[in-house]
Amino acid sequence: MTEIQDPSIAEEIIALEKAGLDRWYDGDPGGPLELTAPSITYFDPWTPMRLDGRKALVDYAEPFAGQVHADRYEMLNPKVQLYGDIAILTFNLITYDRQDDATEKIQNRWNATDIYHRTEEGWEVVHMNWSYMNKESETTDP
Amino acid sequence: MTEIQDPSIAEEIIALEKAGLDRWYDGDPGGPLELTAPSITYFDPWTPMRLDGRKALVDYAEPFAGQVHADRYEMLNPKVQLYGDIAILTFNLITYDRQDDATEKIQNRWNATDIYHRTEEGWEVVHMNWSYMNKESETTDP
Repeated sequence: MTEIQDPSIAEEIIALEKAGLDRWYDGDPGGPLELTAPSITYFDPWTPMRLDGRKALVDYAEPFAGQVHADRYEMLNPKVQLYGDIAILTFNLITYDRQDDATEKIQNRWNATDIYHRTEEGWEVVHMNWSYMNKESETTDP
Repeated sequence: MTEIQDPSIAEEIIALEKAGLDRWYDGDPGGPLELTAPSITYFDPWTPMRLDGRKALVDYAEPFAGQVHADRYEMLNPKVQLYGDIAILTFNLITYDRQDDATEKIQNRWNATDIYHRTEEGWEVVHMNWSYMNKESETTDP
């Protein structure tokens, strides 16, 4: 089983991801959480160790309801590596928010890995690793 | 295609990873680089953006030859999620090194994602996302 090139699947995965992010950055953890598989494993810069299983991730993420907001984001250079029923989605993400004086500022920069698994019910996320980009990359940001 | 439970494959993947890390922490980038697929994608805390392809990763990692050393590491709670020919290896890694006064100190703490793909020539790494663990987890470190 070698890597498959299928632009329509790449588009489908990226659209799912963006739909989840749109809800997350509007304060709704259900956006990404509803995409997860029961067996998901998860890392981010605040997790004390890897989180294992949807329940652990729900317990971790639900307190963020209403707490997360970005005015907009840019998903840079998304790539889907497809092997059978596994699609590895990777991208850099820049989020932006307005300050008190209404000027827009970069909020966060991410290295994002989301692994999707195709099931009879559709695509489910079985692993996520979200981490910070090198801050030195600021000078080359768009 | 659902998740497969196969302890012998998990052991094989973890042994490959440790063999690569043993060389990396002894100053030899070839350890992990020789495991990579031509199409590898890669993130770590210093990459300015995602690196795409083995050549980009080799150009990035080879200058570290002889520069990286840890006396030992602990691979915590490694897990392999197996789907067809894709094995998602995740773990937390604590590296240790001795100080000038010979006392041992924690050097780094990692959230590590390495995705292996089974080919006719053996397992190849098609994606890596290495990022820092939450520093607050220090109090719960072993």
